[in-house]
Amino acid sequence: MAEDETIQNITPWEAQVVTDNKTISINYEKIITQFGCKEYHEELTKKLQEMTGVPPHFYFLRNIVFAHRDFDILLEKLKSKSFYLYTGRGPSSKSMHLGHVIPFQLCKYFQDTFNCPLVIQMTDDEKFLFKDQSFEESTKYCAENIKDIIAFGFNPKLTYIFSNVESSHLFEKNTLKIAKSISLNEACKIFGFDNNSNIGMIGFPAKEIAPCFASSFEFLNKGAMCLIPCAVDQDPYFRLARDKASVMKEPKPTTLYVSLLPDLKGVNRKMSASDTTSSIFLTDTPAQIAKKIRKYAFSGGKETLEEHKRLGGDTAVDISYQYLRYFYDDNIDLERIKNAYEKGEMSTGDIKNKCIDVLQKFVKDYQERRNSITEELFQEFCSKL
Amino acid sequence: MAEDETIQNITPWEAQVVTDNKTISINYEKIITQFGCKEYHEELTKKLQEMTGVPPHFYFLRNIVFAHRDFDILLEKLKSKSFYLYTGRGPSSKSMHLGHVIPFQLCKYFQDTFNCPLVIQMTDDEKFLFKDQSFEESTKYCAENIKDIIAFGFNPKLTYIFSNVESSHLFEKNTLKIAKSISLNEACKIFGFDNNSNIGMIGFPAKEIAPCFASSFEFLNKGAMCLIPCAVDQDPYFRLARDKASVMKEPKPTTLYVSLLPDLKGVNRKMSASDTTSSIFLTDTPAQIAKKIRKYAFSGGKETLEEHKRLGGDTAVDISYQYLRYFYDDNIDLERIKNAYEKGEMSTGDIKNKCIDVLQKFVKDYQERRNSITEELFQEFCSKL
Repeated sequence: MAEDETIQNITPWEAQVVTDNKTISINYEKIITQFGCKEYHEELTKKLQEMTGVPPHFYFLRNIVFAHRDFDILLEKLKSKSFYLYTGRGPSSKSMHLGHVIPFQLCKYFQDTFNCPLVIQMTDDEKFLFKDQSFEESTKYCAENIKDIIAFGFNPKLTYIFSNVESSHLFEKNTLKIAKSISLNEACKIFGFDNNSNIGMIGFPAKEIAPCFASSFEFLNKGAMCLIPCAVDQDPYFRLARDKASVMKEPKPTTLYVSLLPDLKGVNRKMSASDTTSSIFLTDTPAQIAKKIRKYAFSGGKETLEEHKRLGGDTAVDISYQYLRYFYDDNIDLERIKNAYEKGEMSTGDIKNKCIDVLQKFVKDYQERRNSITEELFQEFCSKL
Repeated sequence: MAEDETIQNITPWEAQVVTDNKTISINYEKIITQFGCKEYHEELTKKLQEMTGVPPHFYFLRNIVFAHRDFDILLEKLKSKSFYLYTGRGPSSKSMHLGHVIPFQLCKYFQDTFNCPLVIQMTDDEKFLFKDQSFEESTKYCAENIKDIIAFGFNPKLTYIFSNVESSHLFEKNTLKIAKSISLNEACKIFGFDNNSNIGMIGFPAKEIAPCFASSFEFLNKGAMCLIPCAVDQDPYFRLARDKASVMKEPKPTTLYVSLLPDLKGVNRKMSASDTTSSIFLTDTPAQIAKKIRKYAFSGGKETLEEHKRLGGDTAVDISYQYLRYFYDDNIDLERIKNAYEKGEMSTGDIKNKCIDVLQKFVKDYQERRNSITEELFQEFCSKL
């Protein structure tokens, strides 16, 4: 694979992520270089802790938050300014999988800690324009996916969820101003559009960018800065958004990028909703979770127990360990597991069992919250814009 | 001017219209060939009269309605089906001029005669995206222009006016479906977009096309056909709309094209709001109208009175006569004036005076209606969608 091809592999619509030739895991340093964003540093974690008086979310400690744009500057400015969160979700299938969880959990950490507003764009239009998904499917999934998001436990008074199809008028003025400032040439270079692209696709970036400049909206604090926690594959949109801040006469949006949750079959693949044997869904039963981890989770353990005890397992590629890294909130015990597994004191069976326990609990708690969503609560989240 | 260049001259954004080398008036036959629409024939006028029992609007008798797409088929189908009207207005300046009147008067004729619904799209987005006009100007002009339209006397119970900026969600589903079916290549070929076009421009055609497929909307009769009375420069949109009817699973929209009202300075120029000495505005006073006609209206009369009496005037290029053709509803007297002027029995002064009388009365009646528009009436027109 040539260097140039490697660089082309992450776009908002490509599931395959960058790997290099030496390891089979994702090379996040290369991504940082490619996108030109900044590497996340421990100092920011210290600063977060100083500001809030409590330890930050474990995502910050485990390099799950691995890159950003101006998050350091946002933290500096928080002495005198407020901020709001913006993230999104493309409703692509009936239920969300574990890979979709990370940016929302990060938003929840910020909302709980800073009591800040959160704007969530449902890109049902994008799924229709870019995929084979029918219009009816896109809009049907949307309502279910909004409930999936509410179930993370956001504050209904501070959270604003809207569908692009139903509520395009909300950000239409921003969309038009941004669209006028992006030439076809610029859009093609950034997003790879060509003569066969449909004209809806070509206009879409302005829609995803529009809520980055919501600081004049009544429901947010006037002049609030925008922080976007998201997967790094969305960076092309927000890099472009930052270029357009002067046109919009608003501050540049800031971003925090989380690494992509690998799928069950290996760390070099992003979890995809279309392959049910490679993904754990938020609707899976405890038995399904156990079966998927046991049967499909790629193991970093050795071929035989004897060999494993002697040489130890490889946590860098072990999916059970990686899922613990993303979902197990006990930092000390995670470190213990890592050491034990790498020394061969802990077997593949043991680490799979631990992973199953953690995911079953996470999904069960989540499902309880999702099942308790009333129509009133749903409306409270969707009717404020 | 090469043949090919001539053909390129009418687009939705070009004010200059096609002329050929032999005459200085617009060559409508060439336009029909270029656009591939059908010439309007007297038989359709007869048919209209048969169906309605009254003489059709004089536009049909004077070749002001000069071309169409499937209007004949629409008339055939009216035995068993209903139709709605769709037209639009780009709010480009504070007040409308006489050139803007014609498609609306034609809509009024149809609504009065057939009691049919009328949908009017205010393309404030298009004016922002394609012109230097600021966003604030576009949206400010919009409210004033809606009143200008209401003043034509439409039925508030059957007329639905909306702004693209304020109400983009109304037709968003149609817009997305149409946008998905138009490739960049197709859009560039039809509308002349290039690498420097902004991405808002490229997406705009789907917005103008969207209301062509409104037959499933509650406010219209289910399965109603769409008839679009408009200036011929809008044909590229509706030709494309007809191509997309199968995608939308709806009937092809039908169109009626009116010829472009020439400006005061000559029949080869379309009236433009940006040149105040070449246009008569619906806000002009009687004195302004008189002054503009006397001072600027291009005359088809001869240099001297003696010569004029001997050789007669040329009604084909005489702006006063042309305006009478568009605004004087007395068919018999118009014929008398034509003959008298062409024989030299009527002087340039005489025909200008007649034109001034007719326009002053038209504008005065219009202004009275416009001044009587209440906030309640405004809301009734704008709040039904």
